[in-house]
Amino acid sequence: MSHGMRVDLNGDVGESFGAYSLGHDPALVPHLTSVNIACGFHAGDPDVMRRTVALARRHSVAIGAHPSFPDLQGFGRRVMQLRADEVENLVLYQLGALAGVAAAEGAAVRHVKPHGALYNAAATDSMLADAIAGAVAKFDPSLILVGLSGSELIRAGRRAGLRTASEVFADRGYRADGALVPRGEPGAVFEDATAVAARAVAMVREGGVRTSDGQRVSLTAETVCIHGDTPGAPQIAEAVRAALETAGVRVMALSAAS
Amino acid sequence: MSHGMRVDLNGDVGESFGAYSLGHDPALVPHLTSVNIACGFHAGDPDVMRRTVALARRHSVAIGAHPSFPDLQGFGRRVMQLRADEVENLVLYQLGALAGVAAAEGAAVRHVKPHGALYNAAATDSMLADAIAGAVAKFDPSLILVGLSGSELIRAGRRAGLRTASEVFADRGYRADGALVPRGEPGAVFEDATAVAARAVAMVREGGVRTSDGQRVSLTAETVCIHGDTPGAPQIAEAVRAALETAGVRVMALSAAS
Amino acid sequence: MSHGMRVDLNGDVGESFGAYSLGHDPALVPHLTSVNIACGFHAGDPDVMRRTVALARRHSVAIGAHPSFPDLQGFGRRVMQLRADEVENLVLYQLGALAGVAAAEGAAVRHVKPHGALYNAAATDSMLADAIAGAVAKFDPSLILVGLSGSELIRAGRRAGLRTASEVFADRGYRADGALVPRGEPGAVFEDATAVAARAVAMVREGGVRTSDGQRVSLTAETVCIHGDTPGAPQIAEAVRAALETAGVRVMALSAAS
Amino acid sequence: MSHGMRVDLNGDVGESFGAYSLGHDPALVPHLTSVNIACGFHAGDPDVMRRTVALARRHSVAIGAHPSFPDLQGFGRRVMQLRADEVENLVLYQLGALAGVAAAEGAAVRHVKPHGALYNAAATDSMLADAIAGAVAKFDPSLILVGLSGSELIRAGRRAGLRTASEVFADRGYRADGALVPRGEPGAVFEDATAVAARAVAMVREGGVRTSDGQRVSLTAETVCIHGDTPGAPQIAEAVRAALETAGVRVMALSAAS
Repeated sequence: MSHGMRVDLNGDVGESFGAYSLGHDPALVPHLTSVNIACGFHAGDPDVMRRTVALARRHSVAIGAHPSFPDLQGFGRRVMQLRADEVENLVLYQLGALAGVAAAEGAAVRHVKPHGALYNAAATDSMLADAIAGAVAKFDPSLILVGLSGSELIRAGRRAGLRTASEVFADRGYRADGALVPRGEPGAVFEDATAVAARAVAMVREGGVRTSDGQRVSLTAETVCIHGDTPGAPQIAEAVRAALETAGVRVMALSAAS
Repeated sequence: MSHGMRVDLNGDVGESFGAYSLGHDPALVPHLTSVNIACGFHAGDPDVMRRTVALARRHSVAIGAHPSFPDLQGFGRRVMQLRADEVENLVLYQLGALAGVAAAEGAAVRHVKPHGALYNAAATDSMLADAIAGAVAKFDPSLILVGLSGSELIRAGRRAGLRTASEVFADRGYRADGALVPRGEPGAVFEDATAVAARAVAMVREGGVRTSDGQRVSLTAETVCIHGDTPGAPQIAEAVRAALETAGVRVMALSAAS
Repeated sequence: MSHGMRVDLNGDVGESFGAYSLGHDPALVPHLTSVNIACGFHAGDPDVMRRTVALARRHSVAIGAHPSFPDLQGFGRRVMQLRADEVENLVLYQLGALAGVAAAEGAAVRHVKPHGALYNAAATDSMLADAIAGAVAKFDPSLILVGLSGSELIRAGRRAGLRTASEVFADRGYRADGALVPRGEPGAVFEDATAVAARAVAMVREGGVRTSDGQRVSLTAETVCIHGDTPGAPQIAEAVRAALETAGVRVMALSAAS
Repeated sequence: MSHGMRVDLNGDVGESFGAYSLGHDPALVPHLTSVNIACGFHAGDPDVMRRTVALARRHSVAIGAHPSFPDLQGFGRRVMQLRADEVENLVLYQLGALAGVAAAEGAAVRHVKPHGALYNAAATDSMLADAIAGAVAKFDPSLILVGLSGSELIRAGRRAGLRTASEVFADRGYRADGALVPRGEPGAVFEDATAVAARAVAMVREGGVRTSDGQRVSLTAETVCIHGDTPGAPQIAEAVRAALETAGVRVMALSAAS
């Protein structure tokens, strides 16, 4: 068994809005070590954010911002072509807004993980990635920037002098180049909790996972994402956490002292 | 000449939005000691906020948040009936958002002044006033809460343990009970810079002003508002400031050490 | 059995938005004769509206607009103080928007029922009621205006020369003055499908219903509302419809030739 | 002098929003024969739309819809990657909304011209162009679709069986391939009213114009756009109209019987 092996379990939460409820936050959060809270641009509103911060705090889960393109109707999943300075400013705005709400619960923001189309674009577009990393560094250089393992966002975070966290998706198939198999293709999504848990353990302990055609892709796995909108997300989170702990991996927040 | 007499000159700024330009910020800000920056709910967007914070900083003017009901079309001037917790959360959100943008310019938020319908409602509705004061105190108890002189908002700020600043409008007529003469009625608005300046001096030096029918209304004047959307606002600000200084009043930000 | 007795069964539908799903439209719509479709201001977006029009059309259910105050976060349930001309214009906008989407499905709008806070305010505020009725009459004077039975909105519709439909809520308690028992008070809400169905039959056949303290309140019942967000809404709709038909009442759309 | 030569003069109007004023509509509209009215997605609100329809009607100018991506902050100038069905539905929504507001002024929509990033994308993306044309045809097949001369949008309009109008920009430089010289490059914009007027006459009478390097580009010019946000737009419109009429071109709305 490896010494000092640790990983964070994160989930996107606080994605309800007004009268609309989404996700399984109360059941999911207790199994996580970090949550990424929507900041009002793709989901979330000040009331949902307050409630979600309080929930995370009750379970001693680390709080992070989940900023997005401004597109509530598209849930932040539609690409918008913005200038770098526009992206920097909207990340600052959302980060600050969450910090403001969190302050009322005596909580602080610990990390930042972009959402949806912004996350995906920042994986390959270095200018966009630098804009996001720049916003985080200017807001608070002690924050941790979470991005796709091997992505431009991780490199941008390092360039900005930030601590970064490489994220893997245990419920998603990977291609040999480290990219995710696009949804809709065979092997894109794993739904069985046991299979997902086994993949998580492989990613963390072995630093990689098999592609669908049997190749091995190397991955740095500092945080494992649990998709909160999957049916059975709480059960998957529980299974992943149990499997990791059984395998001798300490599951703890990125920001926690080791 | 009175010893230690001081006052702040504040203006609502950063009320442009996207392609839309409003106000005379670059000409007005140099004459002020504090600015109240729109936070995106009635006006302002992350880019406008960033630009406005930078402008204030260049002129060493104190930065405050100008939170509003969420009503861009109505410019925050239409009453919305929200619960107290909704108001608390939307003030936290806007305060945080501005603080986030300000951080990128190395600036900090020093005060909070609600906008439009929220300001007016908080002058008489103590529950709403407590919600606003509570948000400010939870966000940062060192912030100064600006409200209408003699209003419920000032009382709520004191109840919350905040430092408060009583605001007067030198370009507006007052009724004997301390309320503003409603726009549209005779004596509601003063447009002549010299007249406005004289009223400002009276308010600060004598602690009150004459009503249109010759009565005297007492006013605590810790900050004088210059309406930025008035034509000639920069000239009025300049005249008010010069008249105050000539009268021996030190014009300085609320947050400045005396 | 009464001759010519008829009633409409209506439901508020199309209240999903983007990634957010609300209500039980596919199960509910087949039991209704009219639907009120959200127009994007409190709920609904162009895609949801299109889908909802198509659903209604498949089941030959009459299509109506469900305009609201512009308040997505508050789901149109928060009062906003708007001028009459603002209300007239936002009703025109929403009515037109739905008609535009409906045109693509070969469907026409037949009626209008305001939503939430706008519906409630228009029940007692005759200026607001006239603004809504005016918008409908200017858009298409052949549309039917649906309002609370006995309300100002019904009177305003008549003043504007519109055909009106008096609405009753079989699942809500009434006070002796014809107002609804406020939610939260005893007797405000009936959840048992059989009880709701019996009340609907009484309202339509006897022109009234008992209050909780045994008085009788007279009600004109031209359309019965089924709340779509109640759990079991489809079952309630089915029970109400069956009970009405068993009682010899023809259940048909307001706009249907008798 | 050519027989039967005619052209339309169009302008984008109604681009104010709430407290924000943009453009010179009252001075510009009298010189035009058609106006494209913002529908609330990039600019405009129900009140602005109503006012603008009334203005157009007072001057007997043809009314058209100016639909956009949903991006008020970006004024519809930022590309959003939407599916074709999303674009179809948002065009239907905006078209209907304008028709609803126009109905209250006894006016009808006669044409549709997409705005900003949607206009530009539809010039080259045939799927997007088909989505827009499909929306227009489904809403009202008698409407005229306005697009860049030589663009995919014109071809899509023809495929959809619509009457189309090829638009030229007399104040913009063209490349030999018929595309506009991008703003910021030399020869991109003409600001002198006389020069713009001469170009308009050449485009209409000679069916083309010179590029900056002296080549000739052929253009079909059925409608000439006057940019309303240019300083001096009303004067340019007046000069263009006078020059066209002097050259024997009848300036009349697309929808006018010849």
